[in-house]
Amino acid sequence: MTTLEACRDVDQHEPLAPLRHLFDLPEGVIYLDGNSLGPLPKATAARVADVVQREWGQGLIRSWNDAGWIDLPQRLGDQFAPWIGAKPGEVVFTDTTSVNLYKVLSAAIRLSQQEFSDPAPRTKVISERSNFPTDLYIAESLCKQHNLELVLIEPEELPACLTTDVAVLLLSHVNYRTGHMHDMTQVTRDAHAQGVLTVWDLAHAAGAVPVDLNAANADYAVGCSYKYLNGGPGAPAFVWVHARHTDKFWQPLSGWFGHAEQFAFNSDYQPAPGIRRYMCGTQPMIALSALQCGLDIFSEAEKYGGMTALRRKSIALTDLFIELVETRCAGYGLGLATPRDIFARGSQVCLTRDDGAGVDGQGSGAYAIVQALIARGVIGDFRKGDGGKGPHKDILRFGFTPLYTRFEDVWNAVEHLRQVLESGEWQKPEFNRINAVT
Amino acid sequence: MTTLEACRDVDQHEPLAPLRHLFDLPEGVIYLDGNSLGPLPKATAARVADVVQREWGQGLIRSWNDAGWIDLPQRLGDQFAPWIGAKPGEVVFTDTTSVNLYKVLSAAIRLSQQEFSDPAPRTKVISERSNFPTDLYIAESLCKQHNLELVLIEPEELPACLTTDVAVLLLSHVNYRTGHMHDMTQVTRDAHAQGVLTVWDLAHAAGAVPVDLNAANADYAVGCSYKYLNGGPGAPAFVWVHARHTDKFWQPLSGWFGHAEQFAFNSDYQPAPGIRRYMCGTQPMIALSALQCGLDIFSEAEKYGGMTALRRKSIALTDLFIELVETRCAGYGLGLATPRDIFARGSQVCLTRDDGAGVDGQGSGAYAIVQALIARGVIGDFRKGDGGKGPHKDILRFGFTPLYTRFEDVWNAVEHLRQVLESGEWQKPEFNRINAVT
Repeated sequence: MTTLEACRDVDQHEPLAPLRHLFDLPEGVIYLDGNSLGPLPKATAARVADVVQREWGQGLIRSWNDAGWIDLPQRLGDQFAPWIGAKPGEVVFTDTTSVNLYKVLSAAIRLSQQEFSDPAPRTKVISERSNFPTDLYIAESLCKQHNLELVLIEPEELPACLTTDVAVLLLSHVNYRTGHMHDMTQVTRDAHAQGVLTVWDLAHAAGAVPVDLNAANADYAVGCSYKYLNGGPGAPAFVWVHARHTDKFWQPLSGWFGHAEQFAFNSDYQPAPGIRRYMCGTQPMIALSALQCGLDIFSEAEKYGGMTALRRKSIALTDLFIELVETRCAGYGLGLATPRDIFARGSQVCLTRDDGAGVDGQGSGAYAIVQALIARGVIGDFRKGDGGKGPHKDILRFGFTPLYTRFEDVWNAVEHLRQVLESGEWQKPEFNRINAVT
Repeated sequence: MTTLEACRDVDQHEPLAPLRHLFDLPEGVIYLDGNSLGPLPKATAARVADVVQREWGQGLIRSWNDAGWIDLPQRLGDQFAPWIGAKPGEVVFTDTTSVNLYKVLSAAIRLSQQEFSDPAPRTKVISERSNFPTDLYIAESLCKQHNLELVLIEPEELPACLTTDVAVLLLSHVNYRTGHMHDMTQVTRDAHAQGVLTVWDLAHAAGAVPVDLNAANADYAVGCSYKYLNGGPGAPAFVWVHARHTDKFWQPLSGWFGHAEQFAFNSDYQPAPGIRRYMCGTQPMIALSALQCGLDIFSEAEKYGGMTALRRKSIALTDLFIELVETRCAGYGLGLATPRDIFARGSQVCLTRDDGAGVDGQGSGAYAIVQALIARGVIGDFRKGDGGKGPHKDILRFGFTPLYTRFEDVWNAVEHLRQVLESGEWQKPEFNRINAVT
C-alpha cells in the first residue's frame, strides 16, 4: 500500500468493509480516537429513543419487568463474554471502570491476605508507573486502607519484581500511553508462581485485541465500554471475576442490586451467587440500552471473521501507519513509542517528538501537532509525559479500529501529519490551548 | 372535595396545573409511583436525541470540551442545589445513591474517629430498621471494614439511642415504607449534642418535601434522581457534603474525575477541592443529559411558587387520599402507615391491610390488591413487611407528585381501590405473581 489508490483498493475488498456502514461517522473527519470515545453506531439513536419514549415513557415502572431492565446488565455481560474469553454468568456491565476496579482490587487484596499471605505477609500491590492514572488512584486508596505499599514499576521489571511479598499485580493489558500489550498468559503464570493475584484492566484491550481471561487463568478484570465497544460517553463499564473466586467474598460496595434476594427487602446483606454480587445500586437503563447497540456490532462482526479478522486488520492498519510515518514524515523528530513487535502491540500507535534541541516535555510540540491535526479533521489525542523528569515522553496517540477505520484513512492521516509538520502550522498560538480528555 | 366534579374544579384552578403539561404521561394511567420511577418529561426525548446524534455522533471526543460534558455533573448540582438548601459548588450528580452513600459514610466514619472519638471510642453506626435496604447493606459493609457495630432502631427510639459511643446516624429523611418524615433540624441538633455525625438519604425527600441541609446543619447527604426528580431509570444520584467537612478527607473511591488536575495524568492522587472530589470514574453523558430535563422542570416550578406551592399541593393530595380511603373504602381492613401529622409526612401515603383474621404478612392481600389496581391502570406499588416477625406490615404504597398528579387522579384511584376491594377481583391468581422494583 504505497499509494492512496492502493489503500482504496484494499478497502474495497477487505472482509470487514461492510461493518463501517454500521456507524454514523461525521463527514470530513478521520477518527483515530476510538480508543478514547468510540463513534456512534447507527442503531443507537433509535434504540435510545425507544427506551426513553416507549419503555420509560409508556411502560414507566412496569418496564423493570416487562422490558427486561432488571437483568440487562447480566444479559449484556453474557453477550460480550466470548470476546474476552469469559463464560456466561461471569461478566456484568455496571458502574464505571474506576468503581469496578475498587470492587475487584478489594476482593483480590482480601483473598491474598486470607489465602496467600502465610507464612509471610504480602505487603505490596504492584502496578506500572504509566498505568492509567485512575487505576493508580484507586490502588493508592486501597493500599492506604489495607496498609499496603503501592509499588510502581516499568514493564521491563516484570517478572523480577514479582516476589513473595507481593499481594496483587494490577496491570492494563494494553497501555493507554504506549499501546504496549502484555502477554497476559505469561504474566499471569509468572505472578501465580509467586502466589501473586492478577487484576487486569482491559480498557484498551476489550474489543481491540484477542483476550482470553479463562485461558490465561487470570483472577480479576475490569474494562471500559465507551472506547472500542462504542457504548457512548461514560457508558457502563464491565467486571469479570474468575469463577473460582467469585463467591468467596462480598465486594465492599454491597448495594441492593448485588443482593441474593433483592426484592425481599431484608435488612441484612446476603450476596447473590456469581457475578451479580459485583453490582451495587440501581442500574442505568438508558445508558445500558445505548451500550447494547455497540455490543451488537461485535455480534455482527462474528459473521465477518470475528476477533481473528479484527486483529489481522488492526495489525495491518498499525503496520501501515508506522511505515508511512517513518517514510513520509522522516526528519521531523518523530519517534515510535509503540512496540514494533505485533505480539506486544495493541490497536493504537503512539508517537513521540523531539524538537531537535533534545528537549521533551513542554517543548515537544506534540500537543500542538495533535491540535493542528484536529483542526484538519484528523482526530487523535495527546498524552502528557513527565516533562523530562522520567522516561515518559509526550505522546501523539492514534487509535485504529478495524470496525470502521479504512486504509485510506491511514494514508490521509499521515499526509495531513506530513503537511502539518512541513508547513509548521502547528506553531500557531491557537493550537496551544490545553484541554483534553481520554 | 367530596365529589369528582369538585376535584376537577380544583384541578382547573390550582396554581401548579400548567406543570403537568411538561410530562409525557401515558393514556389510561393514574401514576402514583413517581416515588419509585418518575415519569418522562416531554423535553427529554429531544434532549437525549441531541446528545446522542449531535454531541456524541458529530462532536465525538471533542464534546467533552465543546459541549460542556466535562463539568455537567457540577452544573446540574448547582442547578438543583437550592432545592435541598445547598450552595453552589456543594452538590454533584454522579454514580448511584448506594455508591455515593459508601463515599459519604466512609468520610463520616473517618471524621468521627479522628475528631469525635476522644476520650472514648465511638463504636456504633445507627440507622432505622426500616431504612431502605441498600443503605443498610452499605452501612453493614463499612461497619465490617471499620470494626463498628450497626445498630438498627425504630424511629421512636430517637433521640434516646444517641449516646456518646455512636459515630454516625444514618437516616432517610422520608422513610420509603411509611412516608414518615424526620425533623432534620431537630434530629441533627440531637445528634450533634452527643458528638454524632448525620448522614441523610434524601431519596424520597429531594424534590418532594422542603429540605434545607445547611439550615439544618447536616453533615452529609445523598439522594436519588430517578424518583421525584424524573431523571430516568437508574439516573445518576447526587451527593452533598457540608462545606466544613468537604476538604478534610479523600473519599475512598478516588478516581480520576475527583483529581485536582485530572488531565495532568499524575500517578499520585490529589483530591480536587470541594465536592468534585466526590466524583470517581468517567461520567455518563447521555444519562446526565436526560436528568437535566427533569431538573429543568424544577427550575420552571419556581415560577409557580416553588417548593412552597409544591408542598402545599402535596399535603392537599395526601390529605385527600387519606380522607377518601377512610370514608369510601371503610370495612375492608385497610390501615394507615403514614403519619397524619403533616409535619411528619412525606409526599406518599402507605396503607396496610388486615385480612380480618388478624393475619399480616403473606395473608395481607396487599400485594394482590396493588396488582389488581395496576391492571386497572392505577400504578402504585407494594412493599413487603416482615411477615409478622416484627412491627413492619405489608405496605400498599402510593406516591403523590404535585408536579403532575391531579386531585381528579386521587379521586379516581380511590374509586378503583374501592371497586377492587368490593368485587374481590384482587383474589384472582394472576395478581399473585411476585415481581416488583422500587
